[in-house]
Amino acid sequence: MTPAFEDLIKALKPLPGLGARSAEKIALHLLVEKPARLPKLINALQEAGRHIRRCGLCGNLAEHEKCNICSDHTRNQDSICVVEQVPDLVAFERSGTYRGLYHVLHGKLSPVNGIGPDELNLSLLAKRCIDHPPYEIILALSNDIEGEATCHYIQQHTLAGSPAQISRIGFGIPSGSGVTYADPITLRSALKARTSYT
Amino acid sequence: MTPAFEDLIKALKPLPGLGARSAEKIALHLLVEKPARLPKLINALQEAGRHIRRCGLCGNLAEHEKCNICSDHTRNQDSICVVEQVPDLVAFERSGTYRGLYHVLHGKLSPVNGIGPDELNLSLLAKRCIDHPPYEIILALSNDIEGEATCHYIQQHTLAGSPAQISRIGFGIPSGSGVTYADPITLRSALKARTSYT
Repeated sequence: MTPAFEDLIKALKPLPGLGARSAEKIALHLLVEKPARLPKLINALQEAGRHIRRCGLCGNLAEHEKCNICSDHTRNQDSICVVEQVPDLVAFERSGTYRGLYHVLHGKLSPVNGIGPDELNLSLLAKRCIDHPPYEIILALSNDIEGEATCHYIQQHTLAGSPAQISRIGFGIPSGSGVTYADPITLRSALKARTSYT
Repeated sequence: MTPAFEDLIKALKPLPGLGARSAEKIALHLLVEKPARLPKLINALQEAGRHIRRCGLCGNLAEHEKCNICSDHTRNQDSICVVEQVPDLVAFERSGTYRGLYHVLHGKLSPVNGIGPDELNLSLLAKRCIDHPPYEIILALSNDIEGEATCHYIQQHTLAGSPAQISRIGFGIPSGSGVTYADPITLRSALKARTSYT
């Protein structure tokens, strides 16, 4: 095709969930089928890039100094749920099961990928827990070795000496599923997390 | 989330192959995970919108008056393959089975959707066939009623009186497939298109 077309494909292809074919489809859609959508998309991308930043308190996406959740005084200010990524926060919000505050680490400890404590949004977590000590901190990190290590680090270092109740979310068989198709690590988590009937 | 974020989701969601979840993933990717990709994508979209237009001869994507294919004098100038959309042309090019010229209609006749002959790139097809009469015209339109009607219209009106050999591409069982899973219309096409062994 044309050089500008190839460049557009190159910019679209690495986006999550897209490949060569879907990038081509989207490019043709914007250039041939619905050209009116092209300036709209460019504008939305520019506006998002211009206005969206990290919340200075929790690391969530924000358009002001504080994000919507940190500015919402109807939420429980005594609880902080620590998540790896913004999508994790979105998942909790979608579930409607949590009404406290969040803290987004923007990753988890992963020495293999060169991600140490300094790469994570940890110092801000330590600071806010000193400034306004929460009653509880829920670590909602992944059920894997890196999530485990990150939880351990937070407990031992970031929140060392904090009077808050620190917990980790439960792991086991997901809703609607059974033992047959669960992988060994899920089964191990589920056994460990068994609750007594008596 | 934030208003600029919601607007970006709204601009991404209607793109082909994307939905609410994938739009959210891409937005977070561009804003949080790989922010360096955001200006690159904006630039590629702007450049594509600025430079890409329709080829004045065949309707393909072009950055100049004529597209790469129409400007390529090593290609067979006596054959025109008529396709519905640019992706159809791309599919032929990818297959490497055709070395003639193309003509892109940008649609097919569809009274239900308000697409009549005037909405298609037909007058340019008539004109080029008078200016430089090709030896053959291959109608590579869909195997459906609308494709059928478009072929009929082209033969009866657009190319009426043309001395060119007009044909329609073959239909039937696709490569690697068999009769068991073929739908009734494919089977009808395949029966009609049977070739004699003797």
